[in-house]
Amino acid sequence: MNEDFFGELKPTPRLLMGPGPVNAYPAVLHAMSTPLLGQFDPQFREYMRQISELYRAVFQTGNRSTLLVDGTARSAIEAALVSLIEPGDKVLVPVFGRFGHLKVEIARRCGAEVVPIEAEWGRVFPDEVLEKAVRLHQPRIVAVSHGDTSTTMAQPLAALGKICCEREVFLYVDATATLGGMEVATDLWSLDAVSAGLQKCLGGPPGCAPLTLNDRAAKRIGARRHLEQGLKKPGEKDGEGPIIRSNYFDLAMVMDYWSDKALNHHTEATTMLYAARECARICLREGLSGAFARHALASRALREGLQAMGLELFGDPAHRMANITGVLIPPGIDGERLRSTLLERHNIEIGTSFGPLHGRIWRIGTMGYNARPDPVYATLNALEEVLLEQNFSLPRGDGFDAARAVYGAGES
Amino acid sequence: MNEDFFGELKPTPRLLMGPGPVNAYPAVLHAMSTPLLGQFDPQFREYMRQISELYRAVFQTGNRSTLLVDGTARSAIEAALVSLIEPGDKVLVPVFGRFGHLKVEIARRCGAEVVPIEAEWGRVFPDEVLEKAVRLHQPRIVAVSHGDTSTTMAQPLAALGKICCEREVFLYVDATATLGGMEVATDLWSLDAVSAGLQKCLGGPPGCAPLTLNDRAAKRIGARRHLEQGLKKPGEKDGEGPIIRSNYFDLAMVMDYWSDKALNHHTEATTMLYAARECARICLREGLSGAFARHALASRALREGLQAMGLELFGDPAHRMANITGVLIPPGIDGERLRSTLLERHNIEIGTSFGPLHGRIWRIGTMGYNARPDPVYATLNALEEVLLEQNFSLPRGDGFDAARAVYGAGES
Repeated sequence: MNEDFFGELKPTPRLLMGPGPVNAYPAVLHAMSTPLLGQFDPQFREYMRQISELYRAVFQTGNRSTLLVDGTARSAIEAALVSLIEPGDKVLVPVFGRFGHLKVEIARRCGAEVVPIEAEWGRVFPDEVLEKAVRLHQPRIVAVSHGDTSTTMAQPLAALGKICCEREVFLYVDATATLGGMEVATDLWSLDAVSAGLQKCLGGPPGCAPLTLNDRAAKRIGARRHLEQGLKKPGEKDGEGPIIRSNYFDLAMVMDYWSDKALNHHTEATTMLYAARECARICLREGLSGAFARHALASRALREGLQAMGLELFGDPAHRMANITGVLIPPGIDGERLRSTLLERHNIEIGTSFGPLHGRIWRIGTMGYNARPDPVYATLNALEEVLLEQNFSLPRGDGFDAARAVYGAGES
Repeated sequence: MNEDFFGELKPTPRLLMGPGPVNAYPAVLHAMSTPLLGQFDPQFREYMRQISELYRAVFQTGNRSTLLVDGTARSAIEAALVSLIEPGDKVLVPVFGRFGHLKVEIARRCGAEVVPIEAEWGRVFPDEVLEKAVRLHQPRIVAVSHGDTSTTMAQPLAALGKICCEREVFLYVDATATLGGMEVATDLWSLDAVSAGLQKCLGGPPGCAPLTLNDRAAKRIGARRHLEQGLKKPGEKDGEGPIIRSNYFDLAMVMDYWSDKALNHHTEATTMLYAARECARICLREGLSGAFARHALASRALREGLQAMGLELFGDPAHRMANITGVLIPPGIDGERLRSTLLERHNIEIGTSFGPLHGRIWRIGTMGYNARPDPVYATLNALEEVLLEQNFSLPRGDGFDAARAVYGAGES
């Protein structure tokens, strides 16, 4: 270490067009410089109330229990599952990408009897397959991704919500990759618990995770409420359900902390809350439908551009996420070398993929702040250059023109 | 909600003199506005390597596994315990305040057989009591707070470290409230695992938690390594130990993520990492011994001032933390009303307490950025005013003068 202990932060600025994190909105970065407040300061409690109200609008829900989990998006998946799953519960997990496997693995660690069902990567489950699986396996809980960035596919949820609701099965949805970028209609689709993250369509940094629970889910979790010794009042009774296996992720306690009881639990991550607040404000000022349309348009422009360059898109066209696109790496192209060149020469980051898709596709995100024309154009132009360098044959300029035509059609 | 969705963040600035969070250093707030990077960007991986090196210096250790847990300080307590504790393990927890009870409760949720031993709040354990308990109970793990802000006491750890090391017991220490403010000699004291937070003596926001593991702890945890499906290479084998009950807090996976393997796990909380980096730089540029002396001096000035005002300090004077002071609420004074007046009129926050100390003491922190003369003076002056308002009899100006004399003695 040098005398200045590595010096000040001065990263080369990157255009983050991968699966997230993406570039944060400048207003979000600005909000993160706001001075701290104590967690029980009336001003801070008011900000917490505002967060609940803002995220109710973002999640399209009336759920009282709408709050932040202090950790990355993955932390809220675990918080939802460990709080909902009682050891021995049967949990059905429809897996259509890496983040399905993740839910299988988290649910197992929570002591669940997990029933995974798998779809080919690049496809989603037809409604009737899910309905049949719910009837057949009779799970207590279904845990599913809305959008799985590893395959760029989005699972339709309305029918699944209806099936689960009718059969009194709890439905948990991981909307990390879609919230703010495409429809997540929590109440309309009867989703019992939904969690997300800031670093995708909401254009914030990773590090805190919005979560909403309906009354049915909150009641199940509340029945497992066990107060910490040292906080318990004389005579106060614990819930009758089995204790939740995590303290940090015990949503019964987190709900108490967020409620007007303001019962001490963790120390709320002040600055991350400021970021979450600004992310929601930006999303709501634009309007949800405006934000969804902007994401869809950016993806359409990108996809037209990619295809005009002679590239082939990955996955079922009917179920693509609005904010990320899978592109097949053409034969003869060194996908990792291309990504490195893009990053080093153009300061543009795109994503690789996992498991069966590793080395087969690139993933290009157009989300949050970056779902705009200029990042799409810059990415297509740079991609053209690095593809040509690797002797890929393509008509110069056609990618940009095709994207421009998509945006141009929407201009006056 | 109004049209502007509650408007921009504009909190009234507070001087945070409670048990934490305290005001963050301006340079830390500034660092949090730095644009994001992708988590596998070579620049970001370099920042992660720097973080490890910086926190090795802060923890006074050579431990390879020195990293951040993405959550508040409490998250790292749980990460350490859930990763170290195998269900059925006997865990000895010396409890001398609320955060001892917290470790009892977390260890129980991890499936441990927990043996709590208790000291009166306001005292710590003599070395021989701890030694006897370790001999008697023969635990696999001892989990203890270094400083417990609920009582303002600090437990000496050198002798406990020696006993545990000799008997091959794992010693986990929660140094959330002391790291950067008083000696935490990880290697010298033979501590196997130590975790902390940013929001106390390090002068950052809550939301990420530095943690260090020595090779012995890392080996135990590594033996419980289970890779996520979808990330596992063909033929790759899991460890032989029982799977860790949490995915998010699985330190075997978090170590893989932080190592040169860069194995995907969570998405590192970019901005919190930036904050952690700046906190460590500030601490190391001042020098650990300088930072410890500054905290000790601020506390001494505060305590002299409080006593000169006729207030009585709480707890064993031989074992006070260097960065927080307990003050008995005098008879006839409404402690909560006084705290409200301090906050509303003077914008100064001090702390209440928990459990047996609720309503009996205030807690005043002098830590991180706020361990300076002017916050101490401002606090004493404001406290004098609000005490007088409640008809407490005190000699005007004596508090300030006594604090000034402490600082004056160190001036040229």
